[in-house]
Amino acid sequence: MELGGYANKIAHIDLTKGKVEYTPIPEDWARKYIGGRGLGVKYVFENGPQVDPLSPDNILCFMNGPLTGTEANMSGRTAFVTKSPLTGTILDSHHGGWSGARLRWAGFDGLIFKGKAHKPVYVYVEDGKVEIRDASAFWGKGVHETVKIFKEMFGEEDLSVIAIGPAGEKLAKFANWVNEMDRASGRGGTGCVGGSKHLKAIVIKAKKKIPKAKNREAWKPAQKRALATIMDENNATSPRKGGLSVYGTNVLTNISNNMGGFPTNNAQLADFGAKAEFISGEYVKEHILVDDPTCHACPVACKKEVEITEGPFKGLRMESVEYEPAWSLGAMCGNDNIAAVAKIIDMCNDYGLDAIEMGDVLAMYFEAKQRGYTNGGWHLRWGDYMYMVEIVDKIGKREGIGDILAEGTERAAKHFGHPEIAMTVKGMGIPAYDPRGYKGMGLGYATSNRGACHLRGYTPASELGLIPRKTDPLAWEGKGELLMDLQNLKAFIDSMDLCTFSSFAEGAEEYAMQYSAMVDVPFTADDVMKTGERIYNLERYYNNLNGFREGSDTLPERFLKEPSQAPGSTGHICELDKMLEEYYKVRGWVNGVVPEAKLKELEII
Amino acid sequence: MELGGYANKIAHIDLTKGKVEYTPIPEDWARKYIGGRGLGVKYVFENGPQVDPLSPDNILCFMNGPLTGTEANMSGRTAFVTKSPLTGTILDSHHGGWSGARLRWAGFDGLIFKGKAHKPVYVYVEDGKVEIRDASAFWGKGVHETVKIFKEMFGEEDLSVIAIGPAGEKLAKFANWVNEMDRASGRGGTGCVGGSKHLKAIVIKAKKKIPKAKNREAWKPAQKRALATIMDENNATSPRKGGLSVYGTNVLTNISNNMGGFPTNNAQLADFGAKAEFISGEYVKEHILVDDPTCHACPVACKKEVEITEGPFKGLRMESVEYEPAWSLGAMCGNDNIAAVAKIIDMCNDYGLDAIEMGDVLAMYFEAKQRGYTNGGWHLRWGDYMYMVEIVDKIGKREGIGDILAEGTERAAKHFGHPEIAMTVKGMGIPAYDPRGYKGMGLGYATSNRGACHLRGYTPASELGLIPRKTDPLAWEGKGELLMDLQNLKAFIDSMDLCTFSSFAEGAEEYAMQYSAMVDVPFTADDVMKTGERIYNLERYYNNLNGFREGSDTLPERFLKEPSQAPGSTGHICELDKMLEEYYKVRGWVNGVVPEAKLKELEII
Repeated sequence: MELGGYANKIAHIDLTKGKVEYTPIPEDWARKYIGGRGLGVKYVFENGPQVDPLSPDNILCFMNGPLTGTEANMSGRTAFVTKSPLTGTILDSHHGGWSGARLRWAGFDGLIFKGKAHKPVYVYVEDGKVEIRDASAFWGKGVHETVKIFKEMFGEEDLSVIAIGPAGEKLAKFANWVNEMDRASGRGGTGCVGGSKHLKAIVIKAKKKIPKAKNREAWKPAQKRALATIMDENNATSPRKGGLSVYGTNVLTNISNNMGGFPTNNAQLADFGAKAEFISGEYVKEHILVDDPTCHACPVACKKEVEITEGPFKGLRMESVEYEPAWSLGAMCGNDNIAAVAKIIDMCNDYGLDAIEMGDVLAMYFEAKQRGYTNGGWHLRWGDYMYMVEIVDKIGKREGIGDILAEGTERAAKHFGHPEIAMTVKGMGIPAYDPRGYKGMGLGYATSNRGACHLRGYTPASELGLIPRKTDPLAWEGKGELLMDLQNLKAFIDSMDLCTFSSFAEGAEEYAMQYSAMVDVPFTADDVMKTGERIYNLERYYNNLNGFREGSDTLPERFLKEPSQAPGSTGHICELDKMLEEYYKVRGWVNGVVPEAKLKELEII
Repeated sequence: MELGGYANKIAHIDLTKGKVEYTPIPEDWARKYIGGRGLGVKYVFENGPQVDPLSPDNILCFMNGPLTGTEANMSGRTAFVTKSPLTGTILDSHHGGWSGARLRWAGFDGLIFKGKAHKPVYVYVEDGKVEIRDASAFWGKGVHETVKIFKEMFGEEDLSVIAIGPAGEKLAKFANWVNEMDRASGRGGTGCVGGSKHLKAIVIKAKKKIPKAKNREAWKPAQKRALATIMDENNATSPRKGGLSVYGTNVLTNISNNMGGFPTNNAQLADFGAKAEFISGEYVKEHILVDDPTCHACPVACKKEVEITEGPFKGLRMESVEYEPAWSLGAMCGNDNIAAVAKIIDMCNDYGLDAIEMGDVLAMYFEAKQRGYTNGGWHLRWGDYMYMVEIVDKIGKREGIGDILAEGTERAAKHFGHPEIAMTVKGMGIPAYDPRGYKGMGLGYATSNRGACHLRGYTPASELGLIPRKTDPLAWEGKGELLMDLQNLKAFIDSMDLCTFSSFAEGAEEYAMQYSAMVDVPFTADDVMKTGERIYNLERYYNNLNGFREGSDTLPERFLKEPSQAPGSTGHICELDKMLEEYYKVRGWVNGVVPEAKLKELEII
């Protein structure tokens, strides 16, 4: 079967049996779900929604989109897709770098792991072949050392290593896969699934070999047009020209803080006051920035490599201080020491832990201490970064209190008898946008298919005026439809798989042109939106089948009942109910459940 | 010559010549200036007020009072008296423990050092003899190691070691002498004078041999009455029964904070809010207290030994977290980590540095950074205790920025071009009472003879209701006379030399009875006050001769012009001018200068 624009090869790796089978992608699946996230979700769905996430029966897909590793701009993305042990929902989590591209150059669209190896293993991928190899010597090692040893074994050139750390081995619920030292498929516990399968690493060796579009004539103008939007000199918020390129994602810290949309001290506050400056991208650039690394095919270079030259973390060099962990390990924990933020991010990358959830769980623990819900940690205090470092270490090793906190924010808060101090949705901790200052984001967290997430439908793009469709961050009206459109578009982008930041410049039209040229099928902007809608509804359907139905789409009560005191959003709460009503209506869902008619309309069933 | 109640032996140690001479105390001096502080001041005065503090011509007196080391309660005190290199004023600075008692038991009232040794030396004191010995092997060593080696050399029993640390050797202006690991003659740079003389340590070996009062019949009832006041079960604020015994001096943290009399963030604020609790004596007791050591003959045991069991300073055990350094290294620097406070106190004790001035100079540096007056220290921030530890280390070694800060708060602030951010009086940093919440203390700082000091006349005893003469802390009226009386009384107590805390129970009557019985001369409560006045006026006269005249008795402008925002003292400034007018009037001084008539009236000249 020919399937233009794809490698059209999936490796099915049965870890229990130690066998690898290769199949093409069913054409119908490719057309309807594209690749990356969408295709991964389809595989996970077909594997059965009721599966226990940590049983051998769960599958773990490492899945590219048809654009991954191509000439397309910002096409260095790839996804892990599985059922989440943190949330019990469907889960896709992406990372950048070169590993997706190299998987494609090695001849694959994806690797699908099932079963559980009898002893620790890694897979070695090269030239269209996957080998399962013994990883006993790597078990217990941090990601950084693991990567280093593999580089010594196979040579640094053309090599990608994606590994789990000790936290994943020990089934920490927010353990992740880390790619090339510092880039994580961060959220939802993908690494925990890896650990449950005794899968330590994925090693890919592949020389650069850019796949050609099937319709080469159509490709050139499509690619040129996409690039033009990204590089647009007349667009102050284009990814290349805007603050993203100069300061990285952390350009947002001061902005969100001023908007009163920056959860602080476990969201007891909606801004970090004057302290935000000290964890901002501007501050990083002024004091510790040393390099701007990129992913495959990216003209933006949002990564901001730093080196710490003073204080207790002197000598640390690490790839990037992003907005999310700057917030989670900064303001959320009351910590304004950016060197400590960098240190803890680095520790998270080495242990293989989600740095967002880490901040959430630490902040919850700080609040538990503040309110006297725990006796532990007598010198535990907001912003005490040395204590944070100590607890992170314990979480990574699952020692003492770390063993409880490794279960994630929501389970740990329940352990303390106070679920209300968990800033989570469906078991996953919130990211760096306070729903009292970014109303659309509140709806986004509540309706996200993988728990509190900013990346399902990035309403701040509209609320910050980064896209032509601008809205007031403090208004709730119209956010339902806005979010739906952004969720659908994002589901498509994640399936191609392109970087989110491309969407600050490109729109459905550009995506349609690139996809159509690559696979050589007619495809319009409407098709983009319809396909995204299909993927989003399949995910929602999967979750519905797992018991996420009426009442599941909610937010921590704090955002609904405690008005913001931050200057930028004073007096505001998040009007979730009103937005939810609007949203369900445009979605055609009944109390959060996809009706059969909708599933049929979208050709899901 | 007989001089009952004294050892009546002073050792004059000429370090330049390497010679020791022994003399009795001139009887007239003993009667008029008692001992300890008063007598030391007399010796320093007679040595010539114009001397350069760091020249060999300055003298350094290690001076007991007639009650030091006797049966008298709380008589474990002794003083260093010299001309201060930090302030240029007269300086006495006391410490507790056993070294004063042992000096007495070894047969001395005092040791007076002059000159400068050609190489580092220490003096060994035993059985009425003083030997000058080579200390080259100790030069550069911390106080703790120095003490340890001497204990190994001479046996721990009956031994006291008083040493300077590396900071004193390097002439840090607020270097001090540290006694028995943890007890410092803290303020004004006594250790700097030691360093300038190449005097590393004073080692005293003496078995306990309590001196008897000359009038034994009178002594018993005097001593019994003094003890009864200290142990008084009906007095809620007696030193034995009150919080002092339970929580140590740090019982004051929450009290001062609630009063709005707790300078925070370099006194930009007058309270530390809810964070004060975390550095309080109550918090110490709950979490890290392990022992309550005492000084010679003390039933109170205000020392609070702590052990740190968590965090970056885990394993640290040190003798006491006092109110003053809990404030200076805590609230004053915005730091609420009590373990870090303990760590830095311990570092100060090892380097031989004043922990009060240390907090002042760090806080000044933090404010310099806050206001952009310095480029140094990119991650310098209020409360960043790890950074504090790093700078303290640099100050102890006089490395980098530490070399500037080692000059003390006032000189360092001038270095940054902003003397107004130095919270100092006459060159010495303030202690833990905000003059906006403790008005009397403001006058006390301004008129203290050794720069900003709370221990010249402890008005909080009245403002907190610890003594029968109670006053409103926020009222200025009457503080002039109150302060004068307390200064005079304290000058006498410091000369006997008894612990300040005895004065929360004992009064002039009790002191007169004990002194009179000890030396067997008739002495009344009036004599106590008159003698104290004489000593205080001699000190003032000394300072007048050094150029401290009209306009010298002032406060940092902040306390005079920036109203407190703390709940306990909202809107208050310190009405210094009004109090000063009242004070000079009762003192009989003209614009802060002692007139000749007063000197004659007090038989000073």
